[in-house]
Amino acid sequence: MAGLVELTSIRSPRVKSARRLAKRAFRQQDRRFLAEGPQAVREALALPGGLVELYTTAEAASRHADLVDAAAKADVPVLRVSGEVMAELAQTVTPQGLLAVCAFLDVPLERALSGAPKLVTVLSHVRDPGNAGTVLRASDAAGADSVVFTDASVDPYNGKCVRASAGSLFHLPVVTGPRYTTLIPALRAAGLTVLAADGAGTRTLDDLADDGSLARPTAWVFGNEAWGLPEEIRALADDVVRVPIHGKAESLNLATAAAVCLYASARAQRTSA
Amino acid sequence: MAGLVELTSIRSPRVKSARRLAKRAFRQQDRRFLAEGPQAVREALALPGGLVELYTTAEAASRHADLVDAAAKADVPVLRVSGEVMAELAQTVTPQGLLAVCAFLDVPLERALSGAPKLVTVLSHVRDPGNAGTVLRASDAAGADSVVFTDASVDPYNGKCVRASAGSLFHLPVVTGPRYTTLIPALRAAGLTVLAADGAGTRTLDDLADDGSLARPTAWVFGNEAWGLPEEIRALADDVVRVPIHGKAESLNLATAAAVCLYASARAQRTSA
Repeated sequence: MAGLVELTSIRSPRVKSARRLAKRAFRQQDRRFLAEGPQAVREALALPGGLVELYTTAEAASRHADLVDAAAKADVPVLRVSGEVMAELAQTVTPQGLLAVCAFLDVPLERALSGAPKLVTVLSHVRDPGNAGTVLRASDAAGADSVVFTDASVDPYNGKCVRASAGSLFHLPVVTGPRYTTLIPALRAAGLTVLAADGAGTRTLDDLADDGSLARPTAWVFGNEAWGLPEEIRALADDVVRVPIHGKAESLNLATAAAVCLYASARAQRTSA
Repeated sequence: MAGLVELTSIRSPRVKSARRLAKRAFRQQDRRFLAEGPQAVREALALPGGLVELYTTAEAASRHADLVDAAAKADVPVLRVSGEVMAELAQTVTPQGLLAVCAFLDVPLERALSGAPKLVTVLSHVRDPGNAGTVLRASDAAGADSVVFTDASVDPYNGKCVRASAGSLFHLPVVTGPRYTTLIPALRAAGLTVLAADGAGTRTLDDLADDGSLARPTAWVFGNEAWGLPEEIRALADDVVRVPIHGKAESLNLATAAAVCLYASARAQRTSA
């Protein structure tokens, strides 16, 4: 690192090429995204070709010398930047001084559904990236095999989604962009029961746990934060299921409802096994 | 509403008296808080003395004439303000035009624990108001009898918490400020098993569901977003319990973990009954 030149201008072409990844259109064009902090760098390094470039401040480079060395050893370009440039790149209030440019991670739907999946999460019309990232993290924790973002959902590579996923974006296969008309049949062809989670569901999560149907390989479809799932998707699902509301709340927030559903499946599948 | 004078200056004493409620110290001094939007106004109106003042723009007053009339009929002062003043008061990016000044709702611990509670949520050292509000909402949905904010936790009347609770702040008894040294014995004296939720727990939620202990009346204690619960609280609890992590995630986020725990209790209590 001794002879490294520090980039101090946000107009440097290299910095500009990273900075533009804050926009979805450029992410899709380059098939790259930004992930901040030592955990993200570690996760990206663990995947072959996962880490494309590493930006670091001098301070972070000495604090995380192990990661910077590992990146250099893996032939990943390491770029030293000023604190000012990092602040521009990092999109967070208190940048951690390390920023990874990562290769897109998503896999084709067929690959994600190969190998007899037991638990799959589908995000349909989910618009808030923080919610999406939290569901991704909960899916990972509950042992899901993959997470599908339909064409009408937020971009999983959005900075807020990446942060909220707390590393889980790197942990399990992610699929982006399928339309529900091809997705739902593909899920069913993979042996999955398709459950649409919706407050308007006629059966509750407890009903399905009681009759044993939650133990089946399942794809959960979660919908929009405000209005749930469109009628077409509810009609295509094997069941429309609601989390029972025992108190006076009108509903649960999306991520907590998803976590309750996914963990109910995980428990039913393990108890019946 | 015809002869109503519109307040157009944020320096008007009336507007200032509401605006200062954005700060915790003033909320505690006045025992009042702000809640935005028609749902909050409806909830506050439903509680005797719950709605203290109602601020509305001309546009919102005509859109929500029913609520404004109901407030006036209940002798609640209705104050017409300009859009600019509302923007100052509402603390949100897109104000909904209706802002309620509400009376504090919290009740003494003894009252919240009277009547043989079966499910109580305790927030200890929770710092993010959005998380706290989401846990409040999940507690309401799971049928909890009350929610306790310890002295080291965020203020439930914080604007972000009120919004994230989606009305649940008005639905179930909330207790603020007890220290854990008095709280834990009081919970136990009320017949509640005290379960500390912590990633370092030796037993999992599934273990407790399997051995039937989740069916007992339970107080769940949830801790800080980053570092969990302090050792003193874990030591005082009857059990330290973790949500099982089946995938590669290090942990769940606070609100999703809380929802999974609370719903596991709700189900166990209803299944065994």
